[in-house]
Amino acid sequence: MKQGIFITFEGIDGSGKSTQAQMLAARLTAEGVPTLITREPGGTVLAEKIRDLLLFAEEDPAPETEILLYAAARAQHVGKVIRPALARGAVVICERFTDSTLAYQGFAAGNDPELIRQMNTFATGGLVPDLTFLLDLTPDQGWRRVQERSSRIGTDRIEARGLSFQEKVRQGYLRLAAAEAERFCLLTGSDRTKEEVHQQIWVRFLEKFPFIPVGSKGKGGK
Amino acid sequence: MKQGIFITFEGIDGSGKSTQAQMLAARLTAEGVPTLITREPGGTVLAEKIRDLLLFAEEDPAPETEILLYAAARAQHVGKVIRPALARGAVVICERFTDSTLAYQGFAAGNDPELIRQMNTFATGGLVPDLTFLLDLTPDQGWRRVQERSSRIGTDRIEARGLSFQEKVRQGYLRLAAAEAERFCLLTGSDRTKEEVHQQIWVRFLEKFPFIPVGSKGKGGK
Repeated sequence: MKQGIFITFEGIDGSGKSTQAQMLAARLTAEGVPTLITREPGGTVLAEKIRDLLLFAEEDPAPETEILLYAAARAQHVGKVIRPALARGAVVICERFTDSTLAYQGFAAGNDPELIRQMNTFATGGLVPDLTFLLDLTPDQGWRRVQERSSRIGTDRIEARGLSFQEKVRQGYLRLAAAEAERFCLLTGSDRTKEEVHQQIWVRFLEKFPFIPVGSKGKGGK
Repeated sequence: MKQGIFITFEGIDGSGKSTQAQMLAARLTAEGVPTLITREPGGTVLAEKIRDLLLFAEEDPAPETEILLYAAARAQHVGKVIRPALARGAVVICERFTDSTLAYQGFAAGNDPELIRQMNTFATGGLVPDLTFLLDLTPDQGWRRVQERSSRIGTDRIEARGLSFQEKVRQGYLRLAAAEAERFCLLTGSDRTKEEVHQQIWVRFLEKFPFIPVGSKGKGGK
C-alpha cells in the first residue's frame, strides 16, 4: 500500500533534529510536494498522552514498561498518521523513529536490541524509513544547546540522564548507521550553520529520490 | 527470587472476578497469611494511567497499540508491585493477567496468540500464575450483571463490544484452561451463591498449597 516516501531524523538531544526536519518540510511544501511533518514519541492525541506518561511520569517506568510504551505510541502513530499519509503519496518526515528506541533503550540503556527490533516490527507492521538523516555531534555540544532550551521549557527525564548516557546513545546511533549505510545519511560538524546542513540534506534527498517533481529553484537553494 | 504464591482470577465481564478475589483475600488475611490483592490493567499509579488511556480513550487505539499498552501496564505492575510482594513471601491475588490478554486481544480480537505470549514473557520476565481461577458463565448471564453495574458507573469501551465478542472471549478462556489443566481451576454454574463458589475456591487453594499455615477454622469456612 505504501506509495509515499518516509524520511526520519535521528540524533541525540540538542542535535538539531526539529530544526532540520522543519526546514526540509518547509522546502518540500514550497516546492509543491505533499508533505507531512510529525515526531515521536507522539503524533496523535493518544500517542501524545503516552508521551506525557514517558517524559514526566511521577512514577519511574520499569525498563520493560518504557520499551513497551514507546512501541505502543509508535504503533498508534504509524497506524493512524504515517501509513495513511504514505498511502496518499505524501513525503512523511518524522523526528525520531525505531532507531531512537534502539539507540536509547537498546544500546545506551542495555536492553536487548534484537527484542526491541521484534517489538518494533510488530508495532510498525514492518515499516522502515526510506532515508534517515543522523545529526551527529558530541554530547557536550548537544548538552549546551539542551541547557539553553531547558532554561525556558524545563528539563525532561531523558535529558536529565546526563552526558555519559548521551555518549552511549551517540555510539549506538553510529553503529546503526554503519550497519545500514544505504539508508542512513550521516551529518557531522556542529561548526556549520543550519542553512549549510540543510543544503546537504536537500542534495542527498534529491539524489535519493530523483523522481520527486521539484523545479530548478530547488537545486540551488532559495 | 520468587517465594510467595501468585493467584489470578479470570473470566468475562460480569463473571464475579472482583467479588471472588476479594473474598479469597479477606479469608487469607483473616487467617493471618500476608496477602496482596490487585488487578489489571492497573495496579500502580502509572499503570492506572495506562488503564485510563485504554478504557476511555477519545481516540481508538490501533490493535497493536492496545496489545502494547496492556503489556506496558503489566510490566509496570509486575516490576513495581507483584514481584516485590512475592519476594516478601506474600500471596498475591490478581484480577486479570496474561490470560486476559490472550483471551481478549488474541482469541477474540484475532491477533496472533504466539506474539502476545512473547510480548508478555518480555513484560513479565516470564512470571506465570501458580493457580488461576476461571469463572465461567454464558455471556448473557454476564451481560445482565454488567448492565446492572453500568447503570451506576457507565459502560466502558470493552464492555460495549457486545455479546458475540464476549462469547469469543469465553471460548478463548476455555481453550487456555484445557491446555493448562494443572494451572487452571474452572468454576462453572452461575446458579450458585457467591459463598458456594468461594468455598470451592478455598478448597482448591488448600489442596494446591497444603503448606500454607491456616488454622482448622479455615477448613470449614467461617
